[in-house]
Amino acid sequence: MGKARSSSPTISEVAAAAGVGRATAARTLGGYGYVSTEARLRVLAAAEGLGYRANQLARSVSTGISHTLGVVVADISNPFFGGVVRGVSEVASARGFDALVISTYEHLEDEIAAVNVLVDKRVDGIILSSAACDAASTAHLQLARDQGIPLVLLDRLIPGVELDAVVIDNRAAARAATEQLVAAGHTRIGFVWGPPMVERPRFRRDLVDAAARNLWSDGERLMGYLDALDDSGLPLDPELVSVGEKTESHAYDEVTRMLALDTPPTAFFCTETDALTGTLHALRDGGVPIPSRASVIGFDDSSWAAVMEPPLTMVEQPMLELGRRAAELLLRRIDGEDADPEGSGSNESSGSNESSGSSRHGEYTQLELPARLVERASVAAPH
Amino acid sequence: MGKARSSSPTISEVAAAAGVGRATAARTLGGYGYVSTEARLRVLAAAEGLGYRANQLARSVSTGISHTLGVVVADISNPFFGGVVRGVSEVASARGFDALVISTYEHLEDEIAAVNVLVDKRVDGIILSSAACDAASTAHLQLARDQGIPLVLLDRLIPGVELDAVVIDNRAAARAATEQLVAAGHTRIGFVWGPPMVERPRFRRDLVDAAARNLWSDGERLMGYLDALDDSGLPLDPELVSVGEKTESHAYDEVTRMLALDTPPTAFFCTETDALTGTLHALRDGGVPIPSRASVIGFDDSSWAAVMEPPLTMVEQPMLELGRRAAELLLRRIDGEDADPEGSGSNESSGSNESSGSSRHGEYTQLELPARLVERASVAAPH
Repeated sequence: MGKARSSSPTISEVAAAAGVGRATAARTLGGYGYVSTEARLRVLAAAEGLGYRANQLARSVSTGISHTLGVVVADISNPFFGGVVRGVSEVASARGFDALVISTYEHLEDEIAAVNVLVDKRVDGIILSSAACDAASTAHLQLARDQGIPLVLLDRLIPGVELDAVVIDNRAAARAATEQLVAAGHTRIGFVWGPPMVERPRFRRDLVDAAARNLWSDGERLMGYLDALDDSGLPLDPELVSVGEKTESHAYDEVTRMLALDTPPTAFFCTETDALTGTLHALRDGGVPIPSRASVIGFDDSSWAAVMEPPLTMVEQPMLELGRRAAELLLRRIDGEDADPEGSGSNESSGSNESSGSSRHGEYTQLELPARLVERASVAAPH
Repeated sequence: MGKARSSSPTISEVAAAAGVGRATAARTLGGYGYVSTEARLRVLAAAEGLGYRANQLARSVSTGISHTLGVVVADISNPFFGGVVRGVSEVASARGFDALVISTYEHLEDEIAAVNVLVDKRVDGIILSSAACDAASTAHLQLARDQGIPLVLLDRLIPGVELDAVVIDNRAAARAATEQLVAAGHTRIGFVWGPPMVERPRFRRDLVDAAARNLWSDGERLMGYLDALDDSGLPLDPELVSVGEKTESHAYDEVTRMLALDTPPTAFFCTETDALTGTLHALRDGGVPIPSRASVIGFDDSSWAAVMEPPLTMVEQPMLELGRRAAELLLRRIDGEDADPEGSGSNESSGSNESSGSSRHGEYTQLELPARLVERASVAAPH
């Protein structure tokens, strides 16, 4: 049964080579209990000589810490998550933790499998950008918490779920970007991408309902767009909100559709990198120059955006900082500290609600970091 | 000792709840040996009812398979590696494997820690883009192989190290890109980025030596550039090769330096995304329009490249395919099959050399996938 594997020496073999008892070797290699310095050095030398590798599970059982964090992200090929993971790794590495990353590509079933794998691998805590849109889809998170593994949500809250979280203020960021376009004189502003609805919405309430059922971050960005229209007294035209699949090619199709309207939009606010590149392709193919015939604001600043012709105005998310703060919050939980506010300067709200299911999480902390509008040259007055 | 953790029920508790013996419960939950269907169903129902979670290590000891792959990449925030990981995940997921990704940010010490963690977590195999430039820095790889864990190198070979590998033909790709610029009439072609030398090279042999000591992929790209110059009878001017730090800002500085030469380059070949964006920033700030005053070819196609003004000619690496082929090769090794060539259509060379250290790897396979030059509008005749 099973495959032949060359196995590492046993604790007994190490003990024999070191000339100590098995219990002494086990205590030394497991990092628990009293061992004399001399015996400890003999065991470690023997272990090294024999190529003994501590069994990670044995170590976590004895010390409670395996020095690994799990990071579950939606799509690692999205530079936003690449930056976030870099921030997590920086903080984890400084504390001697390794970050194991799993990408779910926005599939809830892959997220469930990922959390189960990380629980099985005995990570000390998990940072998660969840694909779940509601509390009903979070049994896997409860499972991790039941095993005593702390969780920090990143980038996305899950309505109805009380957990530590680090996010940006998506609604305020989207509102500020839309207001920038309104201030330049635009009254017809395309929004890419909106909710994954099958039927085109007819009324404002259709969009508000869809936003509430959408991924939290996407829904919040749509609400920020609606806020800005409301504040400016501008009417909402549901034709100017893209709906359907969240892909570059669908963004292209939706923008092409909008450009063919009797009164097409004179500006576009694009809330994701793929939404933006899809929009840029559509404008190029439609012969619509930026900014003379269409203004554009994107989300998630990239070094590409600054070398575009014209350089693009972008909402810049603090990706590294999101990752760093999430890792700090998680490590505080792993250390057994209250994840209590310490961060001055960030927009931070700390809930005092009991989290359901585990008394270990008596309070939860939600950090909301600000995003920044980086103004360049892709916004002008409508022609 | 250690922290209080809520623990999952033991196998004995599951056995008691199911009304079977402990050995039967262990065989069922470990997935080995004979268990009657009735007993198996009773054990699984009891395990589910009690919230029992199979101990991953126990499972790997009993079946030899933990259904996880480790993926160690240089920098997950580089979209190239994002695409590669997506390819790995696709193939792994279809076979019921999860991919645990660790990013080393090109630090060899982090790579060593990453491999150790993956060995400790008992992954079934490891895919690795190594920061090691020579065999002397690969003790950590030997360690993994000594534990019977198969390894596949990805994107980068390590000179002197015999392992399965999936790479692109970097030298041919760089040669083709440079030849494209020569064919357009350019005789002074900047190369960004060259080797991380401190002193500026004076002779061809300095560059060839440096290429051999560089990361394999970067060295090969430099050699492809030199090949194309040689073939065309063009002299090499070492002033036109960037040296030093591999960062966007250093690429900017090096291109700015080249633009100030008495006879500046009229074309640039940029071998990394950050090298390209650094070059584009420098050209913009230097008031040098593309392609009328400078032609540009980049590496690693991105959806941004196609919407630039002008759209950029790029060497497109088959990122997804690199990841997929590496995962397929690794899974064949895990299955215990010879990782023998099966891929028709790709440029594939199979070595028959004995790999040092482990007879389990009697033969190794190196797949070399072609890269493709995607021609757009950033190359023109010199002014």
